[in-house]
Amino acid sequence: MIKAAIIGATGYAGQALLGILTRHPEVDVMHIGSRSYDGERIDRVYPLYRGTLDDTCQNLSVRELADSADVIFLALPHGIASAQIDEKVLDKTVIIDLGADYRLNDVNIYEKWYQVKHESPALLASAVYGLPELHRAEITQTNLIANPGCYTTCSILTLAPLIQAGLIDIDSVVIDAKSGVTGAGRGETLANHFCEVNENIKAYKIASHRHTPEIEQELSLLSDKEITLLFTPHLVPMNRGILSCCYAKATEDLTADKLAEVYRVFYEGEPFVRLIGSASPETRWVKGTNLIDIGVTFDPRTRRVIAMGAIDNLYKGAAGQAVQNMNIRFGLDEKTGLDFVADFPV
Amino acid sequence: MIKAAIIGATGYAGQALLGILTRHPEVDVMHIGSRSYDGERIDRVYPLYRGTLDDTCQNLSVRELADSADVIFLALPHGIASAQIDEKVLDKTVIIDLGADYRLNDVNIYEKWYQVKHESPALLASAVYGLPELHRAEITQTNLIANPGCYTTCSILTLAPLIQAGLIDIDSVVIDAKSGVTGAGRGETLANHFCEVNENIKAYKIASHRHTPEIEQELSLLSDKEITLLFTPHLVPMNRGILSCCYAKATEDLTADKLAEVYRVFYEGEPFVRLIGSASPETRWVKGTNLIDIGVTFDPRTRRVIAMGAIDNLYKGAAGQAVQNMNIRFGLDEKTGLDFVADFPV
Amino acid sequence: MIKAAIIGATGYAGQALLGILTRHPEVDVMHIGSRSYDGERIDRVYPLYRGTLDDTCQNLSVRELADSADVIFLALPHGIASAQIDEKVLDKTVIIDLGADYRLNDVNIYEKWYQVKHESPALLASAVYGLPELHRAEITQTNLIANPGCYTTCSILTLAPLIQAGLIDIDSVVIDAKSGVTGAGRGETLANHFCEVNENIKAYKIASHRHTPEIEQELSLLSDKEITLLFTPHLVPMNRGILSCCYAKATEDLTADKLAEVYRVFYEGEPFVRLIGSASPETRWVKGTNLIDIGVTFDPRTRRVIAMGAIDNLYKGAAGQAVQNMNIRFGLDEKTGLDFVADFPV
Amino acid sequence: MIKAAIIGATGYAGQALLGILTRHPEVDVMHIGSRSYDGERIDRVYPLYRGTLDDTCQNLSVRELADSADVIFLALPHGIASAQIDEKVLDKTVIIDLGADYRLNDVNIYEKWYQVKHESPALLASAVYGLPELHRAEITQTNLIANPGCYTTCSILTLAPLIQAGLIDIDSVVIDAKSGVTGAGRGETLANHFCEVNENIKAYKIASHRHTPEIEQELSLLSDKEITLLFTPHLVPMNRGILSCCYAKATEDLTADKLAEVYRVFYEGEPFVRLIGSASPETRWVKGTNLIDIGVTFDPRTRRVIAMGAIDNLYKGAAGQAVQNMNIRFGLDEKTGLDFVADFPV
Repeated sequence: MIKAAIIGATGYAGQALLGILTRHPEVDVMHIGSRSYDGERIDRVYPLYRGTLDDTCQNLSVRELADSADVIFLALPHGIASAQIDEKVLDKTVIIDLGADYRLNDVNIYEKWYQVKHESPALLASAVYGLPELHRAEITQTNLIANPGCYTTCSILTLAPLIQAGLIDIDSVVIDAKSGVTGAGRGETLANHFCEVNENIKAYKIASHRHTPEIEQELSLLSDKEITLLFTPHLVPMNRGILSCCYAKATEDLTADKLAEVYRVFYEGEPFVRLIGSASPETRWVKGTNLIDIGVTFDPRTRRVIAMGAIDNLYKGAAGQAVQNMNIRFGLDEKTGLDFVADFPV
Repeated sequence: MIKAAIIGATGYAGQALLGILTRHPEVDVMHIGSRSYDGERIDRVYPLYRGTLDDTCQNLSVRELADSADVIFLALPHGIASAQIDEKVLDKTVIIDLGADYRLNDVNIYEKWYQVKHESPALLASAVYGLPELHRAEITQTNLIANPGCYTTCSILTLAPLIQAGLIDIDSVVIDAKSGVTGAGRGETLANHFCEVNENIKAYKIASHRHTPEIEQELSLLSDKEITLLFTPHLVPMNRGILSCCYAKATEDLTADKLAEVYRVFYEGEPFVRLIGSASPETRWVKGTNLIDIGVTFDPRTRRVIAMGAIDNLYKGAAGQAVQNMNIRFGLDEKTGLDFVADFPV
Repeated sequence: MIKAAIIGATGYAGQALLGILTRHPEVDVMHIGSRSYDGERIDRVYPLYRGTLDDTCQNLSVRELADSADVIFLALPHGIASAQIDEKVLDKTVIIDLGADYRLNDVNIYEKWYQVKHESPALLASAVYGLPELHRAEITQTNLIANPGCYTTCSILTLAPLIQAGLIDIDSVVIDAKSGVTGAGRGETLANHFCEVNENIKAYKIASHRHTPEIEQELSLLSDKEITLLFTPHLVPMNRGILSCCYAKATEDLTADKLAEVYRVFYEGEPFVRLIGSASPETRWVKGTNLIDIGVTFDPRTRRVIAMGAIDNLYKGAAGQAVQNMNIRFGLDEKTGLDFVADFPV
Repeated sequence: MIKAAIIGATGYAGQALLGILTRHPEVDVMHIGSRSYDGERIDRVYPLYRGTLDDTCQNLSVRELADSADVIFLALPHGIASAQIDEKVLDKTVIIDLGADYRLNDVNIYEKWYQVKHESPALLASAVYGLPELHRAEITQTNLIANPGCYTTCSILTLAPLIQAGLIDIDSVVIDAKSGVTGAGRGETLANHFCEVNENIKAYKIASHRHTPEIEQELSLLSDKEITLLFTPHLVPMNRGILSCCYAKATEDLTADKLAEVYRVFYEGEPFVRLIGSASPETRWVKGTNLIDIGVTFDPRTRRVIAMGAIDNLYKGAAGQAVQNMNIRFGLDEKTGLDFVADFPV
């Protein structure tokens, strides 16, 4: 059994992770970490655990856990992980960081977009961007996995085959993404208040959202050119789900068949990618799963490709993907503990 | 493997049943029945099944299925099942009817409340009301299980210990229940339109809802007197969940401890009942599970007991309970295929 | 023009009040009071005012405003108003308090339920409970109007005719009420977080909500006996609206006609009461208005009366009623500035 | 008083129109037209009218109404109006058509996108596209006003100043728009069912929505070139509101000041346009008003302009704009009957 610790287990992503790991047949959750709820029983924090989980939240550090844990998941705001992790920790245990600190290869880009100093830039070289569909082999070799952001997972996977195949003009990419409110976390802010979110749609952080450089980095790796793109997130009055609508100019006349073939080849054998032709992905059909649904259309009028992806932001966009990474890293079947299907309507 | 057929698999309860049964380790779903979607692939009707289930819906009758199916689930509007089932069918297979036709022991009460003629009243004697917490032993012995309604499951289980212990004045019972919209089914009606439901709360079928006699029948069995009670359902702008708030005059001064003890004894060993003291049950903590959460309070000012129960109407209130009944009837561990826990927020 | 000041203008009730008063033809809003947003422009706090209202929030006290304001509205948490108001203030201006401090005639009941010391109990004698349908004449004569709570307005008006006519057993009253989230205020709490409210229904403060004694006080005035009743509030995932479902045993056999007549006589000429027979009130039909819709049913099976009322909690339950009280107190037509009708769907 | 008739008064747009017109000081609603509810009282169809409007819906034709009505509003599905209107009708009365039949100047484009034959193409020459901010003068001169679509109003007004000023590459325009469910009408379809919409976000009619040619037509009039653009609509789980996010490549380096100035000059004096700099428009701040909020940002990284507009789809996107057109056509102050402000939270 893999001994797993979660630091930051009482936020929405941390809780989703806890839920998946407690059902995972190869995992023993040895630490439910929480600073806010230190000393409280998890079934008081989340009463859904009544009768199944009565552990108490604790507030141990990465260093305290590194000796005994096989894997430590961090679900923390950015800037905290980079101060807790060092070579010694990585010699002892596997870190899967759901935060942003090790996602960007270039520390300057990190510090520019996040406006904090990175505390362990030397570790960036050994960190692997934990998007299995792009970096599966490297994930097996590292002790520092940077789990991607929710918007980024959805956007990168939606666009990757187009970029690699050179089917779109890389200066023309616009991503208009929409997220449910769990993406904003469990913070007690006015912006998260029911009445401020409900019956409203808004964009936010226009041309300035921190997931932008992450998307650009990963897509640039698939191209021979550096990609700069426009990314706009929106807040939708619903609990879960991300829909990424990606627009780009085609470099040639395309057909539905051609697009389907490019995606099919790119994602052949991928357990969590569902290609749905030119249908519209909807978040409801992937809610509660680790899947991404991708649909692609070519519009001959405007010679544009419209590629759309839908994920559950807490699963494929956070906790599910973290467990997928753990499975890969520990040599398990990638789907272990992740083979839940959606229910509807939830 | 148990060969299971579902008739009415494309409504919300039928789909929930299909989802549970396809994940059930001892079941092989041999028939996905639908009149409306006859000939269509189930993953077109519910795209959540893309990649996992590509069967085609068919429209076979109970009689056509009876020879080959070990168990047939019916998720149909009332009045249809009673015309399809007869002694011959019951000699061959087990029927679990999620509709109302065999729930009421007295055909006159059925015909009065439902305003239709019952087509097979002779079968009522062999039908068992499929609420395992009250009728587990009988369920093992019958081929005709009448799966309870959603409101009724929640209300009966919430009140049963109080009635049996004689702690409340049975002339004083008022049930004020609230349901999510899946309870109203998937019908294309104005009443189900998003904009007619959203941002609204209403009661409906005041003093006339058909679940009333069902609740009265089952609670009367626990008392030495016939119980007549007031039941009021409400429609809440959410997908799933039922909350039953039950009010009654106490026959004696009660304490939290006394109430807790009565409930504890009554539900000892029950796998799907969670007693939460005097806390308020919330539908979110049982959403996606087969559980009922029950909380009970005594108010000394008014000498009233307030007992509340919360369930997922599609699981413990319909499909989950149907599978629980199947497990009991076929000698399986009662929790088989039902040991999912809630996630949050969904 | 009436010079009006609002203290606490940036909460939901305060903002609703500001909206009504700025459209009121006889009112000049001279002070938009806010402690949290002191110095900020109101159209920054609530961008709906862009282009129509650019005033700056200030943080003046009752005493500072008393000399110049004709009327001061207070929309504050309980316990604050009672420390700010005294005889001198009341000699100079009219106070309409949307909080709880002057609603209960008996200071002991106040201090027991609210668990704070009342700072000006001597003023309780001159305070008038601002429910126009019951106390219109007294409202014209006082400078201290205690605007009723939202649940209480809805519950009292729904039950009043039954109590006065002696048609129900006053020991049998149970009120099961449901509220939208604006009723919980604009506080940045976990309980108000979108994902904690959405897709959930719960009761709260069972047998202990502070609106209980207020309802009992007012209904007892209509009866020859002291009334003790059970009141249970619920939180519904919607922005606005309250539905009060009131259950009581009838003291005689009743008919729809008899009930309709009792209510018709009681509310004859009332501008904001709509009697809808035995139909079910729905919050959507009164959203955005100062109306209460009341429907009443007698159930011969259980000999119970089911009386239901629906209001907009921010209008008839708070700001609208406050302006109604102001209109009465200042001799205006009671409907002035309140004659908006609902729109749908909002 | 202007005698106004509404044909199609019981859909959501028709009802919104009825609400505005019944409050309009210069209008007498002489006909509430409905085929579905012919003979029913409007306060039965929409109980919000209880006590204020007890008229009966009727099913009269344009020709029957033309003699007595000063203005006839049509809120009908496309293809119906064009068969009812002719020169004789237009000699007698003013038609304001909320449907699509007279919006497109080119009958071929209409027939291609709508796939129906146009029954009165000769009238297209006299029809005026009823977007006051672009065609105010012509609106005063015509008896056939084609009220714009909801998405189109929002998108055209958001982009118009950029196009006219030549600040964007017209081959690069992508519009990603989001709508509340009232935009889909009151039809009893599965797609409108609460549980199919709630907790979901989806795009639909990708590269094929019928509002596309309407946007292209109007923006082309502001440019010296024909514009072909990509338009993608989304369905958001909320009642009302449209947000149009428009992306385009800038033809020069832009500044916030430059953009603000271009928009300021373009919309100088417009009563229903609010320019909010580079802030993000949110539908909640215009809900219940006839306003559009527009915010514009230049992103130097990608050299793209992001222009966003938010409207209430039933008001500025349908009924409010129709009344604005009526006011202009009949020489009234344009704001008459439309000077309501938003409330919040609704």
